[in-house]
Amino acid sequence: MDRPDVIVFDVNETLSDMAPMGRRFADMGAPPQLAVAWFASTLRDGFALAAAGASGRFATIASGVLRSLLTGNTGVADLEAAVDHVMQGFLELGVHPDVAEGIPALARTGARLVTLSNGSADIAERLLSAAGVRQHFERVLSVDDAGVWKPGSEAYGHAARVCAVSPDRMLLVAVHPWDVDGASRAGMHTAWVDRTRAPYPGYFRAPDHSVTDLLQLAELLDRSSTGPGGERRTS
Amino acid sequence: MDRPDVIVFDVNETLSDMAPMGRRFADMGAPPQLAVAWFASTLRDGFALAAAGASGRFATIASGVLRSLLTGNTGVADLEAAVDHVMQGFLELGVHPDVAEGIPALARTGARLVTLSNGSADIAERLLSAAGVRQHFERVLSVDDAGVWKPGSEAYGHAARVCAVSPDRMLLVAVHPWDVDGASRAGMHTAWVDRTRAPYPGYFRAPDHSVTDLLQLAELLDRSSTGPGGERRTS
Repeated sequence: MDRPDVIVFDVNETLSDMAPMGRRFADMGAPPQLAVAWFASTLRDGFALAAAGASGRFATIASGVLRSLLTGNTGVADLEAAVDHVMQGFLELGVHPDVAEGIPALARTGARLVTLSNGSADIAERLLSAAGVRQHFERVLSVDDAGVWKPGSEAYGHAARVCAVSPDRMLLVAVHPWDVDGASRAGMHTAWVDRTRAPYPGYFRAPDHSVTDLLQLAELLDRSSTGPGGERRTS
Repeated sequence: MDRPDVIVFDVNETLSDMAPMGRRFADMGAPPQLAVAWFASTLRDGFALAAAGASGRFATIASGVLRSLLTGNTGVADLEAAVDHVMQGFLELGVHPDVAEGIPALARTGARLVTLSNGSADIAERLLSAAGVRQHFERVLSVDDAGVWKPGSEAYGHAARVCAVSPDRMLLVAVHPWDVDGASRAGMHTAWVDRTRAPYPGYFRAPDHSVTDLLQLAELLDRSSTGPGGERRTS
């Protein structure tokens, strides 16, 4: 692939490290493993709305799913306090260790960087600023302005329109195979960040690139935009 | 509501009791609670394909998700054996206690009964036969013949076409709020079976009826098709 004009980053789990959310469940007397079921169920319900031609706000769905999952959990004394405590965790997440160096390295490739999240732009702004990488991003986008969640095609189309480039000049970067699949169907190039060495599901379109972290992606893009003699290509 | 012409039942969790799946995870050295995350993630990925305009087979997605979830689980000695053992569980599920009496009671309302599953028709056939209620169902339908999973509108439209009735003469019965929401958007009436007394999420369209089991639904339909003097309405 030629160097992309725009690199589009997913936010939740791709940039943010959601591991501390498990601790928030434990704080409230619920099993920490429930965090995995909670995040999967939040995406399940947001994607259900997308499949049915509708949409909702991430925080509304995430807290509603939490209320359902924690109902009847005998360890939880105060349901609404538990929901608030877990949701508050989104405001305090940090980024994965490779982000602080990886984002500047990707910015040095000359590509424009943007984010596109199923969550709110506010949460992403806070995350990127706290991590000291906000200045590398041209835009912080949310599907709230697209009317449908990723992986609905219109969500990616929204990013392409706002950035005024064709989807085939964009590279979507995500840890989630469903995001890689949706972006590919919408005409974007894709890179899968596989920090956990999990198998890539065969029922989703394969990524154009698989990397273990953002630094490896930056090296890969550097190599691909360098000609045989080592000189930088400008195309 | 007038008595529906056709009652459409979801299968997984609505008729089948999936609680024993947790035990299958434990058999293979994985936490039994992982069953909840697994089923939510399977729906997440199937709905992602639906939102992106594509589809896949339930068994393919369920086993792929399982492979991802169990990778790196230190308790699991043989990954493929564990995947097989859990997937085999689908073939041995039973129905919820209210199904054996509830289905004949709903058949006595005079409505035609069909199932519509995101899973295969084979699994549903086996489940209903083993429970002794197969003869009450006119058809056992799968979204495999619709080209998209529920809650995509075309999945419900497929059932309406096959049954040759308008969606507004059909009643979708499900434990899953996402199914109630999708069916409602596709023009069907809806009944939510709430066996666990969980809150209904406000971001989904509300059901027309909420019942705690299938027997209560049969009573409700009996009452609604009976006039003030107790006589049966024929409309």
